[in-house]
Amino acid sequence: MENEDERGLRSRFRAGPKTPTSPDIDSSLDGECNRGERHQLNGDNHVISNGKIEVEQVISKKLHLKRKAEHLRIDLMRQFDSQVNDFVDSLIEESASLEPVPVPAVFSPPLSDKERSKLRDFRPPHGQGKLFVSRRSLLDELFEVNHIRTIYHMFIALLILFILSTVVVDFIDEGRLVLDFDLLVYAFGKGPLVVCTWICMFLSALLIPYTLFYQWSQTQSGSYSHPKLCSFLFCSVFLLYQALGLGFLPTYVVVTNSLPPASCFIIILEQVRLIMKAYSFVRENAPRVLTWAKEKNTAGPVVPLISQYLYFLFAPTLIYRDKYPRNPVIRWGYVATKLLQVLGSLFYAYYVFVRLCIPQFRSISLQLFDLRAMVLCVFNSILPGALVLFLAFFAFLHCWLNAFAEMLRFADRMFYKDWWNSTSFANYYRTWNVVVHDWLYYYVYRDFLWVSQKRFKVGAMLFVFTVSAVVHEYILAVCFGFFYPVLFCLFMCFGMMFNFILHDQRKGPIWNIIMWTALFLGQGVIICLYSQEWYAQRYCPLQEPSFLELLKPRSWSCQRPDDGL
Amino acid sequence: MENEDERGLRSRFRAGPKTPTSPDIDSSLDGECNRGERHQLNGDNHVISNGKIEVEQVISKKLHLKRKAEHLRIDLMRQFDSQVNDFVDSLIEESASLEPVPVPAVFSPPLSDKERSKLRDFRPPHGQGKLFVSRRSLLDELFEVNHIRTIYHMFIALLILFILSTVVVDFIDEGRLVLDFDLLVYAFGKGPLVVCTWICMFLSALLIPYTLFYQWSQTQSGSYSHPKLCSFLFCSVFLLYQALGLGFLPTYVVVTNSLPPASCFIIILEQVRLIMKAYSFVRENAPRVLTWAKEKNTAGPVVPLISQYLYFLFAPTLIYRDKYPRNPVIRWGYVATKLLQVLGSLFYAYYVFVRLCIPQFRSISLQLFDLRAMVLCVFNSILPGALVLFLAFFAFLHCWLNAFAEMLRFADRMFYKDWWNSTSFANYYRTWNVVVHDWLYYYVYRDFLWVSQKRFKVGAMLFVFTVSAVVHEYILAVCFGFFYPVLFCLFMCFGMMFNFILHDQRKGPIWNIIMWTALFLGQGVIICLYSQEWYAQRYCPLQEPSFLELLKPRSWSCQRPDDGL
Repeated sequence: MENEDERGLRSRFRAGPKTPTSPDIDSSLDGECNRGERHQLNGDNHVISNGKIEVEQVISKKLHLKRKAEHLRIDLMRQFDSQVNDFVDSLIEESASLEPVPVPAVFSPPLSDKERSKLRDFRPPHGQGKLFVSRRSLLDELFEVNHIRTIYHMFIALLILFILSTVVVDFIDEGRLVLDFDLLVYAFGKGPLVVCTWICMFLSALLIPYTLFYQWSQTQSGSYSHPKLCSFLFCSVFLLYQALGLGFLPTYVVVTNSLPPASCFIIILEQVRLIMKAYSFVRENAPRVLTWAKEKNTAGPVVPLISQYLYFLFAPTLIYRDKYPRNPVIRWGYVATKLLQVLGSLFYAYYVFVRLCIPQFRSISLQLFDLRAMVLCVFNSILPGALVLFLAFFAFLHCWLNAFAEMLRFADRMFYKDWWNSTSFANYYRTWNVVVHDWLYYYVYRDFLWVSQKRFKVGAMLFVFTVSAVVHEYILAVCFGFFYPVLFCLFMCFGMMFNFILHDQRKGPIWNIIMWTALFLGQGVIICLYSQEWYAQRYCPLQEPSFLELLKPRSWSCQRPDDGL
Repeated sequence: MENEDERGLRSRFRAGPKTPTSPDIDSSLDGECNRGERHQLNGDNHVISNGKIEVEQVISKKLHLKRKAEHLRIDLMRQFDSQVNDFVDSLIEESASLEPVPVPAVFSPPLSDKERSKLRDFRPPHGQGKLFVSRRSLLDELFEVNHIRTIYHMFIALLILFILSTVVVDFIDEGRLVLDFDLLVYAFGKGPLVVCTWICMFLSALLIPYTLFYQWSQTQSGSYSHPKLCSFLFCSVFLLYQALGLGFLPTYVVVTNSLPPASCFIIILEQVRLIMKAYSFVRENAPRVLTWAKEKNTAGPVVPLISQYLYFLFAPTLIYRDKYPRNPVIRWGYVATKLLQVLGSLFYAYYVFVRLCIPQFRSISLQLFDLRAMVLCVFNSILPGALVLFLAFFAFLHCWLNAFAEMLRFADRMFYKDWWNSTSFANYYRTWNVVVHDWLYYYVYRDFLWVSQKRFKVGAMLFVFTVSAVVHEYILAVCFGFFYPVLFCLFMCFGMMFNFILHDQRKGPIWNIIMWTALFLGQGVIICLYSQEWYAQRYCPLQEPSFLELLKPRSWSCQRPDDGL
């Protein structure tokens, strides 16, 4: 099996010029070998090495083979001809039938030419937006290659060793098997509150934007006297809901109840996701209603069903469509595997923190601004940082999204591209998280360009960067309970800088190496600085901090107490 | 470029069932979407969505396409037919001309049938031995896939970070740029002595076995009265030379001059390599001379030229052949790259030791047999252990051997197989180092079976294991200057056990995970225990040790002195 596997792979892998085997054997004999011996190996060597084989016999054999081959060849040609015929016929059929419908419109609601020309007023003038296509995730394809699956196995082996060593050390320390995951229990604490908050958020995000949109679409039918005023009012109410109902309230709940980090992450990430989803729903459907209001060629405005909006709220995408490409069946085994992998990643992250991060930062974090210690700290944080990066990518962008996509029969699984091969940060940002990137690209970047009449391309990019950096920093600040804009600075200074230095013209392998060096270093800095600040907040709490004191990083001034923990 | 790359790869990679795209788009519409809308998307939607296109126009277009396709089809069929014809002809030609020569004999010296039947007395009855074929190294092929090249880039990025952090920390400590590689200078110390010893070893290994063999072959020509006595004498002298000249002398030089570890490694590995090469030369050629002595069908015995033996001494193989498949040209750029990669790996290993091993073992190694510390030590040694394993593999088995193979135009580059995918230790042993494995397989395992008349298969395997384990331990003992049979025990206990548990019937991914877990753990144990013993030998030197004290591991009794270092 091994060998077959290997051979199959080699042929699948081979991209460069194929190494010729038999010609090479001949040419390889040109070396230092005896010319006389060579003669025996080439051409008519059968005559020399076995005198009994007659030349006539060979010729008759050749003729026999030739006759047989002729029959086979004729059969083959006949079959091939009929197949080519069928293929050409069906191709012509297809091409004629598909022609009048432009392909990108297949998943947009069908519109007449007139409709479309009018729509241009409300849509940015650049095609139809994101096109959803049935496709698998790249990792699912790569894991079919045994060399790459082995890397996955190596990570599992490492997890087993993490578990093993922790269990053994705990056993020695306590004299019994210790299997409490206190860190996980702490991080995911206050579960009921999280569930309640989530249900409220979700229901409000389902009902309020939909109802508002539905009501607004009715005001555009002409029976109301001031449709523009109505639009303004409804738009204000919607934005107010986004800002207060989805924006302020969950954050308030999180902060006042001082939820632990992981529970906090759940709420805040859901908050951001629902805000983006609701925005996309309105952003995609408003132009259709406005077009209808101008044309009035159907009885009522085209408002999606609430079931379509509900599907969208669960679907792993941030771009609303009435329908998406769907798979015919749900593979429940696949769903179970992906959810198990999410769980595995969670425990992996637990062990990374317990074994690699906590011991390090508990003991060395708080020497007052010692550059040497800082460099070592960053360097020692690179391994946990890289592991956390991979785990976050694998658990969320691959497993979690694929599990939900599978359960919803959602067929477009391109949640990420091959960001690991990026030779530029521009490409890395585009490929790391396609789901969020698409939202930012269509609704922030392109709409910015559209509003500004394509005059500020660099400005649009800066704006997208800033939005992304601010939201990332907001999430971290709320979840950790302190404001320490490391990620923001990395994003805005180095991320931007690298985005211009490592632009898309960079293609060589050296740029991929630089990308990885910067990524590892960035992860090291993030893990190191946030961990230091986390412990500084624990060691040096402020009684009645002023606003300025709240903004000032505690790790810059906190001296470590002498006693252990 | 990115996208093309990706698409190309996907098609190359795809092993499972291909995800159909366009049929899927259709079937995906079966979901919850409006049946009325669906009608517009299928079949004759062009009639509905654009009334102006007449059915007649479509039909005429179809006919036009059909005519054009017909022409193209006829051309295609004609070309295809002639190519199939040519192909069949050349195939018949080839098959007729190749038939009488059995393929495995292509690189063995040409023998008559009679010769061959007689040879069976001197050769183990199992085919022709190793067959050399022109083929590339697996890593060279894998590195053409960008996903796998990225892994290589990640390792380089890690090296850059190692260097960066070391330079910065040294700069802070010393106030200036420190670029001395004292560890490397120490490890490769006493260079001139190494070079002299190597030259002596090499010249003796070139001249003595060849001369002995040549002289012996002359004694078999019948002019001497007691050829068997001569054989016995020459054999004894050869074995004496192997044991004393190649075996004892270099070790004596190494031990009396107390060479540092890396220099020592060079001498001892060369010693083992030359012993194996000389053995292979005699082992492969003696049967030919003996056959000739029985037959006497040529003027003199078939003794290879000394140039052939010299080529063999440099060639990256341990199995002697008069000639090997050769490449037509030397790609000097390839040679330079490989040698640079060897150098890079050397510095990588330096940084792994300086940054990951030395700080750890200097401080914590010598708490007297503390199980908790031991577990943590093993666990912390896994990362450097794994890195050293990968570096040794990459630097020696891939780069070094490929560089020499390229310079010698040696075309069979299968120095290793895909050991990382192994699901059994048996397979791992076979694929990790094919060069040494072949020698052990043909000259130890198969000759053992042949001598014992195939009665002790398990015995043969045990014997091979023992030989391999003893030689590995011998190398480590001489190089480190102490006897601490960790590798031997791992080899003989766990290696053997796993060889029987993880045998070839194990194929599932779980066995690959177990293989990696055991491998990582083994590397951790080796690095941890040998490092502890190394420091124990430094801290607690014995004045006049008895033989028993020399054998007893010092780390079991040595208490760490209080002062730093």
